[in-house]
Amino acid sequence: MGKKKVGVLGATGAVGQRICHMLRDHSWYEVTELTAGPSAGKAYGEAVSSLLPDGVPEKLKGLIVKPSTPTGMDVDFVFSALPSNVAMEVEPEFAKSGIPVVSNASAFRMEADVPLVVPEVNPDHIELIRPQRKSREWEGFIATDPNCSTISLVIVLKPLQRILTMKKVFVTTMQAISGAGYPGLPSLDILENVIPYIGGEEKKIQTEILKILGRLEGGSVRNAPFVVAASCNRVPVVDGHLEAVYLEIKEKVDLDEVKEAFKSFKGKAQELGLPTSPMVPVILREEQDRPQTRLDRMAGSVAGMSVSVGRVRHGIDKRSLQFVALGHNTIRGAAGGAISLAELLSAEGWI
Amino acid sequence: MGKKKVGVLGATGAVGQRICHMLRDHSWYEVTELTAGPSAGKAYGEAVSSLLPDGVPEKLKGLIVKPSTPTGMDVDFVFSALPSNVAMEVEPEFAKSGIPVVSNASAFRMEADVPLVVPEVNPDHIELIRPQRKSREWEGFIATDPNCSTISLVIVLKPLQRILTMKKVFVTTMQAISGAGYPGLPSLDILENVIPYIGGEEKKIQTEILKILGRLEGGSVRNAPFVVAASCNRVPVVDGHLEAVYLEIKEKVDLDEVKEAFKSFKGKAQELGLPTSPMVPVILREEQDRPQTRLDRMAGSVAGMSVSVGRVRHGIDKRSLQFVALGHNTIRGAAGGAISLAELLSAEGWI
Amino acid sequence: MGKKKVGVLGATGAVGQRICHMLRDHSWYEVTELTAGPSAGKAYGEAVSSLLPDGVPEKLKGLIVKPSTPTGMDVDFVFSALPSNVAMEVEPEFAKSGIPVVSNASAFRMEADVPLVVPEVNPDHIELIRPQRKSREWEGFIATDPNCSTISLVIVLKPLQRILTMKKVFVTTMQAISGAGYPGLPSLDILENVIPYIGGEEKKIQTEILKILGRLEGGSVRNAPFVVAASCNRVPVVDGHLEAVYLEIKEKVDLDEVKEAFKSFKGKAQELGLPTSPMVPVILREEQDRPQTRLDRMAGSVAGMSVSVGRVRHGIDKRSLQFVALGHNTIRGAAGGAISLAELLSAEGWI
Amino acid sequence: MGKKKVGVLGATGAVGQRICHMLRDHSWYEVTELTAGPSAGKAYGEAVSSLLPDGVPEKLKGLIVKPSTPTGMDVDFVFSALPSNVAMEVEPEFAKSGIPVVSNASAFRMEADVPLVVPEVNPDHIELIRPQRKSREWEGFIATDPNCSTISLVIVLKPLQRILTMKKVFVTTMQAISGAGYPGLPSLDILENVIPYIGGEEKKIQTEILKILGRLEGGSVRNAPFVVAASCNRVPVVDGHLEAVYLEIKEKVDLDEVKEAFKSFKGKAQELGLPTSPMVPVILREEQDRPQTRLDRMAGSVAGMSVSVGRVRHGIDKRSLQFVALGHNTIRGAAGGAISLAELLSAEGWI
Repeated sequence: MGKKKVGVLGATGAVGQRICHMLRDHSWYEVTELTAGPSAGKAYGEAVSSLLPDGVPEKLKGLIVKPSTPTGMDVDFVFSALPSNVAMEVEPEFAKSGIPVVSNASAFRMEADVPLVVPEVNPDHIELIRPQRKSREWEGFIATDPNCSTISLVIVLKPLQRILTMKKVFVTTMQAISGAGYPGLPSLDILENVIPYIGGEEKKIQTEILKILGRLEGGSVRNAPFVVAASCNRVPVVDGHLEAVYLEIKEKVDLDEVKEAFKSFKGKAQELGLPTSPMVPVILREEQDRPQTRLDRMAGSVAGMSVSVGRVRHGIDKRSLQFVALGHNTIRGAAGGAISLAELLSAEGWI
Repeated sequence: MGKKKVGVLGATGAVGQRICHMLRDHSWYEVTELTAGPSAGKAYGEAVSSLLPDGVPEKLKGLIVKPSTPTGMDVDFVFSALPSNVAMEVEPEFAKSGIPVVSNASAFRMEADVPLVVPEVNPDHIELIRPQRKSREWEGFIATDPNCSTISLVIVLKPLQRILTMKKVFVTTMQAISGAGYPGLPSLDILENVIPYIGGEEKKIQTEILKILGRLEGGSVRNAPFVVAASCNRVPVVDGHLEAVYLEIKEKVDLDEVKEAFKSFKGKAQELGLPTSPMVPVILREEQDRPQTRLDRMAGSVAGMSVSVGRVRHGIDKRSLQFVALGHNTIRGAAGGAISLAELLSAEGWI
Repeated sequence: MGKKKVGVLGATGAVGQRICHMLRDHSWYEVTELTAGPSAGKAYGEAVSSLLPDGVPEKLKGLIVKPSTPTGMDVDFVFSALPSNVAMEVEPEFAKSGIPVVSNASAFRMEADVPLVVPEVNPDHIELIRPQRKSREWEGFIATDPNCSTISLVIVLKPLQRILTMKKVFVTTMQAISGAGYPGLPSLDILENVIPYIGGEEKKIQTEILKILGRLEGGSVRNAPFVVAASCNRVPVVDGHLEAVYLEIKEKVDLDEVKEAFKSFKGKAQELGLPTSPMVPVILREEQDRPQTRLDRMAGSVAGMSVSVGRVRHGIDKRSLQFVALGHNTIRGAAGGAISLAELLSAEGWI
Repeated sequence: MGKKKVGVLGATGAVGQRICHMLRDHSWYEVTELTAGPSAGKAYGEAVSSLLPDGVPEKLKGLIVKPSTPTGMDVDFVFSALPSNVAMEVEPEFAKSGIPVVSNASAFRMEADVPLVVPEVNPDHIELIRPQRKSREWEGFIATDPNCSTISLVIVLKPLQRILTMKKVFVTTMQAISGAGYPGLPSLDILENVIPYIGGEEKKIQTEILKILGRLEGGSVRNAPFVVAASCNRVPVVDGHLEAVYLEIKEKVDLDEVKEAFKSFKGKAQELGLPTSPMVPVILREEQDRPQTRLDRMAGSVAGMSVSVGRVRHGIDKRSLQFVALGHNTIRGAAGGAISLAELLSAEGWI
C-alpha cells in the first residue's frame, strides 16, 4: 500500500518547516502539497529561508507553494501550522470539504467538540470527532495538539495522575526563543536577558492541561479536578522548554513510587508502536543537575520526542512534590506532536 | 572627622572586587587593607584580574595584599568576602581581636546570635550583637547579609508582611552566572543552556527568609510563621537574578493595596538616608513584560540597589498572589548589601 | 544664553532613542521636536518602547511626535536618525528650508559636497558646507557622520596616518546586534551563531574611510591614497564592534612609535573641549587579551566615546602592523558621533 | 577479521570524550583501554561528567580508567588527547614500546620527523614515519593532526594550491568556546563578550599551515612558499570555528575556477573511502550569508567532517581572494581529524 498524501498548511513558518523536515523520510506519509500566504506561487525551495541546519528536504524544493484553500487539493489529510487567526478561517474550510486537519494552531483547541490530544496521554479523546462531525456537518474534522509548554507537562503529569490525586499545579517555565516562531523575538529583546512574560501562554497552559487530563464522558470532556497556575518566562536559548513544577497532592507522596511511575510510563502511542513516538516517553534523570536544556532536549529514541524529568523531591511537606521537566518545544511541542497525533488517527482508522 | 578605615577580606574574588569598586568614592569609608589567600604579597593591581568594566580603582592598585589575619591590621572594621569555609575560621579571629566583621559569607548567617540583616527589612536584628558578644566573649562582632537570591525576595516580601498574612511562599529563580563567582561556571556548562540546580541555594533561601522576616524577641529571633519552597535555576545572563514568586495568603488580597504597599515601602535605610541605599527600595513596574533582567538590573537612585517588581496578579484564587522580582545579584545581592549593612551599623553607633 | 532648540528626526528608532537619551542633560542643546513616521500624533512616551535600561527621558515623554517635515518646526537644527531611504527625501527638505541637518543616515555621506566628519579626524571637512549650499541653493545644509564600523577605524587610523604611509588596510569586524537597529536581527538568526555578512557594510567601510582620511583641496575631498578590504561579521553580543585590523605600510614600523601615536592622539574635538568628546580618544591597552567587547565598550571620560586599541604587533614583516580596535557602535558609532559633530559645528559657528 | 583494539589516552577530557563517542560504532576500531591522570582507577562512567548530549557510550561505562603508560596495555594503537605537556612525556613512551600514537596534542606536531597530516590534504606526509622510526629507534611512531583552526583552513587552501600561487594568507578567526576544552573558559569571561586573543593559537596556525601544505622531498617536508598572518578571537558560541580569509595571489584569479576547485575537491581520504571522511570535503555555499556557525557546523555526509566555504569574492583587486570558511572544531578539528588520520594509517598498512 502506498503512502498517504499529505498537505502542510503554513509550510514556510517555523513549525511548517519542521513538519516538512520530520516527514522527509516518513514511512506512512508523503508531503505532496504545501501552502503559505504571501509566498504562494513560488517553488518551496525559494519561498522558504530554512531555519534548520540541514535545510529544506531536497524533494520538496521544487514543489509550488499554493494558497491555503482546499480547492483542488489532492491529499488524504493536512497538517496545519497556520497562525491562529488564519487557522480560524481556513481549517473549517478543509474539514467541511472532507479533508481532515491535524492542527498545531491554537484556534480550535479549546472547542468542546475538538479533540486536543497527546497520544501518550489521552488517545481516547479522539472520539470527540464523532460529535464534532455531527454537529458541524463536516465530512472531515479538526484534531489538535497542545501548546509547546503544555505538552511536556501533561506527559509527566499523566503517570502521576494514575497513582495520586493532584490538587494544585504550579509551574514556572523557562522557554526557548524558537517557541516564538520566526522572525519571532528581536535579538535585542532577548540576548543577555530574561523576559518574564509570553503573551497568552499562561492561559493556554492553565486551560489545556485540564482538558487533556480530563475524562471523556458521554461524548464530551470533563475537566480534570485540580487547579493550575503558570508563570512563563523567555530565556536566551534556541530550543528546549524547561519547567519547574510544584504539586500539592491529596495523599502523602512516596518519591520512589513517583520515580517508578515516571520510568515505567507507557501510553497508547507505545502500545501501537507509532513511528514518531519514542520507546520511553518520560526519561527520569537521577543526577542532581539534570535535565539541562542543551544536553537533554534531543533525548529519546525518536530524537526530541521524549520528555526528561529530574530533581524529583518533596516540597514543603510530604503532600507536595517538586521536579523539573524538559521537552523540545518545536519537536515534541509542535511538529512531532502533530505528526504523532496524525499517526494515532491513522492507526485508529480516522485518516 | 575623617573616614573610617576599612579592610576587605577576600578582596580578589568577585564580591571583594565589587566591594572595592563600590567603595572607591565612599563618603564614610576608605579602604586601607586588602587580604586574599593565594596572592598575598602582591600589589592589588597585579593580584587581581579585574572582572569589572572600569577595572580596579586607581588608588588601590599599589596596596599590598595581605594574608587574612587580624594581626597588625589597622582598621575600624572589615568587610568579609571570603569563601564560606575560610570565613568559618577567619571571621571569628577578627571578631575576637576586636574588629567588627560585616560579612557576605554564608558561614555564620544562620547562627542564632548572629544578625542577618537587610537595612530596609530587619534593622532591629542588629541587636543580636549584644548576646553574641556576651556569649562568645568577643570585643568585635560578626554581622551578615543574606544570599544574593534571598535578598531581593525579602525586600519585596517585607511590605507584604505589613499588610497581609503569608502562609506559603513558592519561588523559582532564574539566576545570573556572576552569582557563582569567578572562575565559577565553565562556559561550556551554561552557554545555550539552563541548569536547574544551584548547590545549597534552595536551602539558603528557605531558611534565610524566615530568619530575616522573623521577630526579635528577648534577645533572639523567632522565625516568621510561614513556609518557603524554592527551585533555583542558572540561566545564561551575566548579572541579575529574576524570581517568579507565588504566595498563598490567609486573607483575600486586593491587588491595588499590594501595589501601593510596594510603591510606598520605605525602611530604616531610607529614614536614615544611608548613602548606599536607594530612595525607592522597591520599584513597581506596571508594564506586562517587566522587570527584565538586562533592562532593570541597574534600577534605582543608587544603581543596582533597588529591587524591581512586576506582573502583580492573583494566582489560582483571591487568596493567592503572583509576581516577578528582579535584583542585581552582585550589587544589592552581595557587595552593596554588605556596604549598606555597614552603613546601618555606623549610623547606629556599632562601628 | 539659552540652549539651542533641537529636533530629532526618526526619534523612535534605536539611534533616535539613543540621541534623545544622550541629550537629556546636554549643556548646549535642548530637544524640542521629535518626528517619526508611523507614530506621529502620539506622545513620545507612548510611541516608543524604550530599548535603553533607564528608559525615555522624563521631559520628553509628553512631547507629541510629529511627521518628518520642516513645516512649522521651530528649531535651530535637527539630528537625523532616519532610515536611509526616508532620509534621501526628507533631509534635503529641511536643508532647503534653512534647517541644518546633522545626519547619522547613510543617504548623503558619499556625496562630494556633503561633509562626512569625525571631529577628532577631519574637522576641516565641514568646509564642504560652503560649496554644498552654493550649488544646491540651500539655506541650511546636511553634514553626516560615518557608519558605526567605519568610525572606530578612522579614529585609530588617523594617528597612524600622521606618522606612516599606509598602503593596504584589511579589516575583519565582529559587530554587535544593536548595529542592526530595532527590531533588527531575529533572535533565531543570531543566538548561538555568527553570521559572516552584513548587507552594504563592507562597501560603506571601504569607501567612507578613504573620504574621511582624504584631504580637503580646493573645495573638495581627495580620497586617501590607500586601499581597504573589509569582511563584516555579526556576533551574538548586544553592544560593541570589535575589529581585527591588518595594515601594510610603506615604511618599516616601530611598534613603540605606533603605541605612542595612539596614546598621545588628540584632535580638534579635544582642543575645543567639545562636551561629548572624551579626553582621550584612543585608549591603548597593553594586556595581551584586551580590548574586550563587554569590558571595554563603555571606555572613556564620556562613556562609550573612546575607542580602545590593543594587541599592537607586527604582521608578516616589519612593514606590516596588526591590532584590534573596539568602539561602542550606538554611542561613538551613531548617536554620540552625531552629537559630537553637531558640537563641532556649533563651536565653529555653523549652527 | 576482528576490529583493531584501540586505547584512548586522556579519555576524560573534551577531545577524549568526543573520540570515544565517535568510535562507539566504528567499523574498524574498538575502544578497549582508557587512560586519564587524576581519575585512574575509577570506572569511565563515573570518572567522566559527559559534555555530550547523548552521554558516555554504554559499553565504555564500566571500563576502568588506567594511568597513561604503555605497560601492560593490549592495543593495536592509541589515540592521544592528552594535554600538550603530558603528551610530551607520555607519547614517546608508547612509541618506544611499539604502540603507534595518533595524536591530537600539539607537543610533536612541528617536529621535522613527525607527520602532521590531514588525509584530504597531505596523505603522503605519513612517510615521515620511516625517518622518525630510524632516528628515534622506535618500534611504534607518533603521527599528529593539526590544531582545530588550522585544519579547516588547510582543507580549503589545498584545492586553491592546485590551481593558483598563493603569496600571502591573512586569516581572522571567530572560534567557539569548546575549542578551549573543559572547564576551559569561565562563563564570566565570554558571555556577552568577544576576546581577541587565544594563547598560542596564532603561532600554531602560522606554522602548521606551511608544514601541511609543504612538499615531501627526500624524507623531509619543505614548507609551503607563502606567508601567513592570523588574528584569533573567541566568540560566545558552543561549537564551530568561523574564519574570514584574505589571500594575495600571484596570478589573476577567476572566481568561477575557484568555486569549481572547491566543489570538485577530493583527496586520498575520498579515494580510499575512509569511513570517517565525508563524501564532499568542501561544501560551497552560494548564498550571500553562509556558512553560518550554528546552521553549518554539522555539515557533511559524516556530520561535522566537511568544511563549508562561502562569500567567495575578490579583495582589493583581481589578484586577491576573500572568503569565509567554517569547520566543526571538536569533530573535524579534533576527534574526527584524529580518527580519519588513523583510518588513513590503517588503509596504508601502518597500523
